Amino acid sequence: MRSDSTQHGTGYTPPAAPLVPVEDVPRRSPAEEARTLVAETNVGSLATLTDDGAPWASLITYGALPGGDLVIVVSSLAEHGRNLVRDPRASIVVAETGAHDDPLAAGRLTVAGRVVRPEGDREREALDVYVEAVPTAEMFTRFGDSSPFVLEVERVRWIGGYGRMGTVDVADYAAAAPDPVGSAADAVAHLNADHADALLDMARALGGHPDATAARCVGADRYGLDLLAETPRGTAYPRVGYAAALDTAVALRAATVELTRRARAAEAARVGPA
Amino acid sequence: MRSDSTQHGTGYTPPAAPLVPVEDVPRRSPAEEARTLVAETNVGSLATLTDDGAPWASLITYGALPGGDLVIVVSSLAEHGRNLVRDPRASIVVAETGAHDDPLAAGRLTVAGRVVRPEGDREREALDVYVEAVPTAEMFTRFGDSSPFVLEVERVRWIGGYGRMGTVDVADYAAAAPDPVGSAADAVAHLNADHADALLDMARALGGHPDATAARCVGADRYGLDLLAETPRGTAYPRVGYAAALDTAVALRAATVELTRRARAAEAARVGPA
Repeated sequence: MRSDSTQHGTGYTPPAAPLVPVEDVPRRSPAEEARTLVAETNVGSLATLTDDGAPWASLITYGALPGGDLVIVVSSLAEHGRNLVRDPRASIVVAETGAHDDPLAAGRLTVAGRVVRPEGDREREALDVYVEAVPTAEMFTRFGDSSPFVLEVERVRWIGGYGRMGTVDVADYAAAAPDPVGSAADAVAHLNADHADALLDMARALGGHPDATAARCVGADRYGLDLLAETPRGTAYPRVGYAAALDTAVALRAATVELTRRARAAEAARVGPA
Repeated sequence: MRSDSTQHGTGYTPPAAPLVPVEDVPRRSPAEEARTLVAETNVGSLATLTDDGAPWASLITYGALPGGDLVIVVSSLAEHGRNLVRDPRASIVVAETGAHDDPLAAGRLTVAGRVVRPEGDREREALDVYVEAVPTAEMFTRFGDSSPFVLEVERVRWIGGYGRMGTVDVADYAAAAPDPVGSAADAVAHLNADHADALLDMARALGGHPDATAARCVGADRYGLDLLAETPRGTAYPRVGYAAALDTAVALRAATVELTRRARAAEAARVGPA
């Protein structure tokens, strides 16, 4: 049946279900995903309105204020700068960085609202946030024709690649914290290169797939690891959680060591003495 | 004087001028730069108008028709799809791919115009162009809610990084060919890793800097190589041209071999027998 549906249907094969009950591991909320995407890069595309109300797309760099409003620095000589002075409505799309063979599999986020010109202490804060995020643009912030604008976010739409997406409540967006672990691409690569045995133990002992024959890590976040495991029943996607949510990126290493230790102890108890 | 201007001025030191007259080597026109950028990637950001006329930025993938109009495939369920059905005005920004430490040093291009729904043979051509550029999206072109749209380009603005930019005449954009050499990042890296001596000979014998002490390649296109050379008079930026403009990417190798041979012969004639 599975091979029939693969050959003649949509190509979708349902993942193998866990064989034993597993702990429900928290996952980033859409608002957390959105704030994490914003924090992970400093480049986006800005949509503004030309003098006849047509849309205009341009490349920008940005920094993010603590509540998720975005700071850009634009020149009054540039087309998008003139556009913003004329009409403050604006939208910025930010895409997940890192190589994807399939661009539509990347996470991305659109925020929209109105820009304001910050003044006094708010201008200083905006410039500090911008220069910290975009150090190579520091020089431009001192040019007379350049000014910071803050996009006050009124709407947020997040797309997590295929299948996960949604409108994010703007209050949730403002309140959410970026995940300090970020995309963790290096850590994921390290786990797969050097710790395949530990990942298999996690899939077997903690992920609910005691018959797994191979496992690799396909994602890491502040709450846990997403695994892809091969089983005689097909491919499974177990998720395993750390002892506690992480508050820093460097805590990821100790958390995966603890996960490995816990998985090995559980696997040894399950299989029994050799 | 130089160190004074560097310490107290803008940090800008003028490049060292050639010591001998050099051949004027053609350079890609802004229209060719624009078409090359479009051809080098398949991801951009789309600006559309929401139902209240506000700008909305979103990620898209695209293919380019022979005249430089862009094909996108969007779902009528997606916000940007609904926007385009309501108001066909649209703009797409495309940024140079490849790692830049400084995002604002990357080339980028904005095109703007109106989208149309191609019909009959034009729809077939649009879908073919799109699927060739974005093979991972082939499946979506067969979904009932997805349709191709062609952005008929009415305005083009190109920014080549710092310093080079301009509005490109739309007829020039339509008539220009993408440079088959593209960004040639791999070829440039290879020249620098393995052929530093040849690059130095080029800078000395063909680039007008016989006193150069080191040289590396900072860019390659269908017409020639951009070099950065160190001289006792400061840094120089010679440009050296091939015997003829290249029509394919693979021709770059033979062209640089010919350049090297020509530079070595000229350098040997200049320096005299050892």
